[in-house]
Amino acid sequence: MASEKGNLLVAQGGGPTAVINQSLVGVITEARKYPSVDKILGAKHGVKGIMDETFLDLTNLPSRHLEAIAQTPASALLSTRHKPKEDDCRKIFEVFKKYNIRYFMYIGGNDSSETCCILNKFAKAENYELCLIHVPKTIDNDLMENDHCPGFPSAAKYVAQAFVGINLDNKSLPGIHLVVVMGRHAGFLTAASAYGRKYEDDGPHLIYLPERPVSPDKIANDVKKVYEKYGRCLIAMAEGVEDENKEPMLQRIMKDMQKKELAKDAFGNIQLSGTGALGDAIIEEVIKKQLDPEGKKKLRARADTLGYPQRSFLGCVSEVDQREAREVGEKAVQFAVGLGKTGSVAIKRIANYAVNYELVDLELVGGKTKHMDDKFINDEGNDVTPAYIEYLRPLIGELPPYEQLQAPIYKQ
Amino acid sequence: MASEKGNLLVAQGGGPTAVINQSLVGVITEARKYPSVDKILGAKHGVKGIMDETFLDLTNLPSRHLEAIAQTPASALLSTRHKPKEDDCRKIFEVFKKYNIRYFMYIGGNDSSETCCILNKFAKAENYELCLIHVPKTIDNDLMENDHCPGFPSAAKYVAQAFVGINLDNKSLPGIHLVVVMGRHAGFLTAASAYGRKYEDDGPHLIYLPERPVSPDKIANDVKKVYEKYGRCLIAMAEGVEDENKEPMLQRIMKDMQKKELAKDAFGNIQLSGTGALGDAIIEEVIKKQLDPEGKKKLRARADTLGYPQRSFLGCVSEVDQREAREVGEKAVQFAVGLGKTGSVAIKRIANYAVNYELVDLELVGGKTKHMDDKFINDEGNDVTPAYIEYLRPLIGELPPYEQLQAPIYKQ
Repeated sequence: MASEKGNLLVAQGGGPTAVINQSLVGVITEARKYPSVDKILGAKHGVKGIMDETFLDLTNLPSRHLEAIAQTPASALLSTRHKPKEDDCRKIFEVFKKYNIRYFMYIGGNDSSETCCILNKFAKAENYELCLIHVPKTIDNDLMENDHCPGFPSAAKYVAQAFVGINLDNKSLPGIHLVVVMGRHAGFLTAASAYGRKYEDDGPHLIYLPERPVSPDKIANDVKKVYEKYGRCLIAMAEGVEDENKEPMLQRIMKDMQKKELAKDAFGNIQLSGTGALGDAIIEEVIKKQLDPEGKKKLRARADTLGYPQRSFLGCVSEVDQREAREVGEKAVQFAVGLGKTGSVAIKRIANYAVNYELVDLELVGGKTKHMDDKFINDEGNDVTPAYIEYLRPLIGELPPYEQLQAPIYKQ
Repeated sequence: MASEKGNLLVAQGGGPTAVINQSLVGVITEARKYPSVDKILGAKHGVKGIMDETFLDLTNLPSRHLEAIAQTPASALLSTRHKPKEDDCRKIFEVFKKYNIRYFMYIGGNDSSETCCILNKFAKAENYELCLIHVPKTIDNDLMENDHCPGFPSAAKYVAQAFVGINLDNKSLPGIHLVVVMGRHAGFLTAASAYGRKYEDDGPHLIYLPERPVSPDKIANDVKKVYEKYGRCLIAMAEGVEDENKEPMLQRIMKDMQKKELAKDAFGNIQLSGTGALGDAIIEEVIKKQLDPEGKKKLRARADTLGYPQRSFLGCVSEVDQREAREVGEKAVQFAVGLGKTGSVAIKRIANYAVNYELVDLELVGGKTKHMDDKFINDEGNDVTPAYIEYLRPLIGELPPYEQLQAPIYKQ
């Protein structure tokens, strides 16, 4: 196949990140170096764009424009959540034939890697010659085989900087502050909230992760203890946290409310991102009800849901993340076009700090979820360990400096 | 008074900002230059710290530490929402006498400026010699007499950068995205969401401000129009937006829900920040109900509430804001100690771009609210004008660059 000319197609799937366009530009610039690549095409909106034949010709874009795109957050080729079924595959391969696509690079997370598995099986069954590479990205950091995933370090940096600020804010005007962080199945991003802690009393004081189911009562007790110690409490909670029966926390609280014949909530759906319902429910139904049931203490309790800025905020990027996101795109082309291979590019940490890029079997990554290692979570299941901070250090790098005021007390 | 030595007291009130510690450090470093200032004291938690006599001695802090504090978001001296009553004033002036406080610099927003008025009246009535200066800060940008307020440009920059990212995210995965921005009475911060727009289809496509009451029906119709045009819609909404009868929007929607005998909502309180209730209610009760009443279209609709990172995110600061926040602190000391005056420091724009600092009567600022000028809001009341972008330009400066992919369509 390397002897015959073919076209290379690149697309992006799933949630955007701050550096997903670095991978796109890595693919484009690397593919230009290979004479066996005729056209470099981009499909709009991921696999949907293949079915619709909405292709862009990326072969001859100006280098300056490409560098500007690399710096731009979110998916420049636009994205999709569509998972192709049998009929879709048939359509996709008709289009592949029509456009002589021989290399396909799909930049995406868990769902997109599953799409790659589906397409690869179909290609084999149809005996269609295709080098297919899954290029990793996800702010959730939960792709198997990877030490970490492009997109995660930048999102983690955003979360860390947000928590430094919220901690100082919460110290200025004390109270209970719950902050909900993205992460349905894995707690890596929520756990990054601890990265900026510096002084003994710095929050987050409690961190709840999908890896450690927790009862509403345990949360209320934990908060009470911290509040009694510091007169305030900052909590980081993953949106995907579950109760002691592994039921999504929001669903559980809604159920409790009905049991007590409280009004049914109109927002009680299990959509997790793009809503403040989980944070509000925990504050109202767990924390206020247990710590201030009569409302007499006028407990200052707030919930923030960090929301979409976590993955797309302009101007908060990890340099290591930018570089690695570029390199996984370049490596994808080298594996596919240079070596005629199919698989998923994986980041391996080989030193503190250096990485190596390997190509692993698609099936080892596709649709699977990696969870936080036990060694990263404390015994009580409500904080991270120093080992996790060390894991993050090279990925996030230095945060902007901050200090708490150190001045002698003055008495007349 | 300038002939006799006295102590200078500084404190911070209200919500923190990213640059409020610049003003604190401006006060401290300037006060050191005056031989008539004996001690430079800081009260913890604003006026509460005066009543409790929790003072810190700031006279001899190392310069390096002061510069680090200046860079740190949130109130280094800690803050309060307490407004002093008659008895509190009596206590405060007892403490002033005991500690020989002759200069008091209170860094804060609308409520803190009102506190300054109260204390000044008390000082006059008691014939207590005090030079009292209100040092302006508020992310809401709603202090009278000021072209703009320290803290606002940095918060506006954060909002602008968040919206550039959310716009690109929303373009990648199209749908309706509502983003709630801080601002109870004034829309300046919400309106800053428009600052990063560059391409014709960039959002926010609709901006709702406290200055322009709007009915839920009008919102739904506006959203429908934009959605039909672009296949997506990004909306910026001030938390303090009101309906056509000037009732807070959240309260109005909750009322509508009860009328229709829908379940009463457990989160239906009128607390605006630190909850996602307003965003969720608009999405569920206004937008989905009107655009997709049967739920058949599976309309992708999300709400984000930007929350506390708007005022305290580490590492997103306007340089002009840092400089001016420092200078209002320095000027406060010059007015009080150098000239023996009392009043509120106000920023006047004297050129594009240069400012002058004036001392205005406390009563002109105290407890009052400035609203957005009519010329900054479009006729339909759902967007800003180019004049507002020009107003913001020197305050926010350049944003990190971004580009949309420009590539030719490819057809076989």
